[in-house]
Amino acid sequence: MQAIIQNPLDTRFTFTLQAQEGRARAGLFHTPHGDLLTPVFAPVGTQATVKAVTPAQLAEIGASLVLSNTYHLYLRPGDELVAELGGLHRFMNWPNPILTDSGGFQVFSLADSRKVDEDGVTFKSHIDGSLHRFTPEKSIAIQQNLGADIIMAFDECAPPSDRAYNQRAMARTHAWAERCLGAKTRPDQALFGIVQGGIFPDLREKSAHFIASLGFPGHAIGGLSVGETKEEMHATLEVVDAVLPQDKPRYLMGVGSPEDLVNGVLRGVDIFDCVLPPRPARHNAAMTRAGRLNLMNASFARDEQPIDQACACYTCSHFTRAYLRHLIVAREMLAATLLSIHNLHTLLQLARDMRQAIFESRFQRFAYDFLAARNET
Amino acid sequence: MQAIIQNPLDTRFTFTLQAQEGRARAGLFHTPHGDLLTPVFAPVGTQATVKAVTPAQLAEIGASLVLSNTYHLYLRPGDELVAELGGLHRFMNWPNPILTDSGGFQVFSLADSRKVDEDGVTFKSHIDGSLHRFTPEKSIAIQQNLGADIIMAFDECAPPSDRAYNQRAMARTHAWAERCLGAKTRPDQALFGIVQGGIFPDLREKSAHFIASLGFPGHAIGGLSVGETKEEMHATLEVVDAVLPQDKPRYLMGVGSPEDLVNGVLRGVDIFDCVLPPRPARHNAAMTRAGRLNLMNASFARDEQPIDQACACYTCSHFTRAYLRHLIVAREMLAATLLSIHNLHTLLQLARDMRQAIFESRFQRFAYDFLAARNET
Repeated sequence: MQAIIQNPLDTRFTFTLQAQEGRARAGLFHTPHGDLLTPVFAPVGTQATVKAVTPAQLAEIGASLVLSNTYHLYLRPGDELVAELGGLHRFMNWPNPILTDSGGFQVFSLADSRKVDEDGVTFKSHIDGSLHRFTPEKSIAIQQNLGADIIMAFDECAPPSDRAYNQRAMARTHAWAERCLGAKTRPDQALFGIVQGGIFPDLREKSAHFIASLGFPGHAIGGLSVGETKEEMHATLEVVDAVLPQDKPRYLMGVGSPEDLVNGVLRGVDIFDCVLPPRPARHNAAMTRAGRLNLMNASFARDEQPIDQACACYTCSHFTRAYLRHLIVAREMLAATLLSIHNLHTLLQLARDMRQAIFESRFQRFAYDFLAARNET
Repeated sequence: MQAIIQNPLDTRFTFTLQAQEGRARAGLFHTPHGDLLTPVFAPVGTQATVKAVTPAQLAEIGASLVLSNTYHLYLRPGDELVAELGGLHRFMNWPNPILTDSGGFQVFSLADSRKVDEDGVTFKSHIDGSLHRFTPEKSIAIQQNLGADIIMAFDECAPPSDRAYNQRAMARTHAWAERCLGAKTRPDQALFGIVQGGIFPDLREKSAHFIASLGFPGHAIGGLSVGETKEEMHATLEVVDAVLPQDKPRYLMGVGSPEDLVNGVLRGVDIFDCVLPPRPARHNAAMTRAGRLNLMNASFARDEQPIDQACACYTCSHFTRAYLRHLIVAREMLAATLLSIHNLHTLLQLARDMRQAIFESRFQRFAYDFLAARNET
């Protein structure tokens, strides 16, 4: 089943569903900078760099899609500078697909202070307190300067359990989605619409119907992993999955623990991102399929095993837990690099393994076994 | 001319002089972990890691010899732990030659307080203030636990212009050199003797004669680049070069700016090391053959050139000055990695170019042109 995206501006993007098992999907999303084989996990390169790793190391662990943040790049070095230097792909030397967020979530969570109105958001930079304003049109203009393959509609993310707030934020998100579509001019970028609605099934259903009706080439599910329970997240995904068209990719924003990936794919998600992997890496935790290891623990001082015997990454092929612990204790930068390589590889490999399992019609079993074996489930 | 090292314990080490031009030499030093093609520059991996780069990146830029510090590894993670984990090569995943210093210089410059006597040095750890003692025998025992290919005699490095101090320190260094030879038992390590004597030609000549008489498989020149002028350093190298045997490698300790490398090779030096490259890299300076660039400078904000057009390193092949400046301004770790790769490559490539020039009998011209073109000469 191949869906050629309707929007005549977006003919460079096609999504092909290659296999399905239950709600889980394996697909191919074609972009101007290469194909994404889904399910796919996108490492986050907030400031045009995935922290502590080079693009060559990212490519070596098999990353295809990298996410970068509009809010940060707008403030520093500036989207116009990035455009002048040939766009984000060239600037950060990532020749493969890139996705940028709209800046909305970052403005709401990072800026020193912000004031929302129907037209947009005024906020103060977390760097120097200077005053700025984002509107749907401004967000699209910035993202067009950055030049990612996948760009996001400007939305408002509300606290998940506040119904009144979610109703207002959803209405704004819908109005802003239409304005984003109207503002977009570059044919080599795919603009994804974002479904909001908190943990309220009726709002989520309404939002998914409305956003789907606008003809975006892909859809994102926003407002999750922001404080709701896992059960609420899963229920929300199920509501949205039932409404969104099957023939377009679905992106679950900001969600990326190993168990979240498996639970997301079980509920029809194709694309994930999360800052989680570099973050615990810089805080000494190594991901394994069975749970996390805190390598600061003294029990690892003489441990000659790799982080994960089953892992094929550079770190696990070459270094012991004892050495990694030494690097952490000695505050060496190499610790962040080696742990990031391992943690990112773990999530990328998990996505690849899920894809293979879907092709082989054994994903339900894979998911059951995986979740049962986790220490953290 | 091939010199099989006399000491029957050291038959795994041979030094072959392959070409000479004036005092400059191209050689091959065979070690149990591979051949060093001299002149060679050794990146410093103080705590069993060259800061901010992986061993794979080090190998890619052509590093062969890596230096690590006895003082630091003795304190953390401990030399016995390193031995238990298979030695330094395995611990840090560097299968190529390694050199360890004796700990002497670090004790004199880093420890919180130290007291020297004829038998050794008592000092307080800079990490936790705990009390420790190094003697020649202890330094060799630690270095045997670490297991580097090239190990150093325990010496005392005095302020370069204090004649009385240098006389005392030289006498101690000579006595300790004999004790180090007596303490060494591992046949797979080459112990180098160290010439001291400050900036005083008669002391340096005496020290070189004495150290050379002990039959070490290689010789180091200590106590330079510690405050003396360039002219004093060069004059000292000339005195020592005239005395030390031609058929053994010479190592100029802790000296490694580009012009120092050229000036050292002009005066018969084969091996260099310096913490310089990672250090300016972490402080935003990029080395080029024409001098340094401070990439924080606003003039680089839109500069699409690589650091050095003539450089073939990963950083210069893939990233602009504008991007590197962005990483520095945004305090991203990748800045340290990319600058370290470039700076180390610059010194390693310079050593390779000098070697080639010696083989082609054009090194005098190379050195003249190089030093004339430097901004810093």
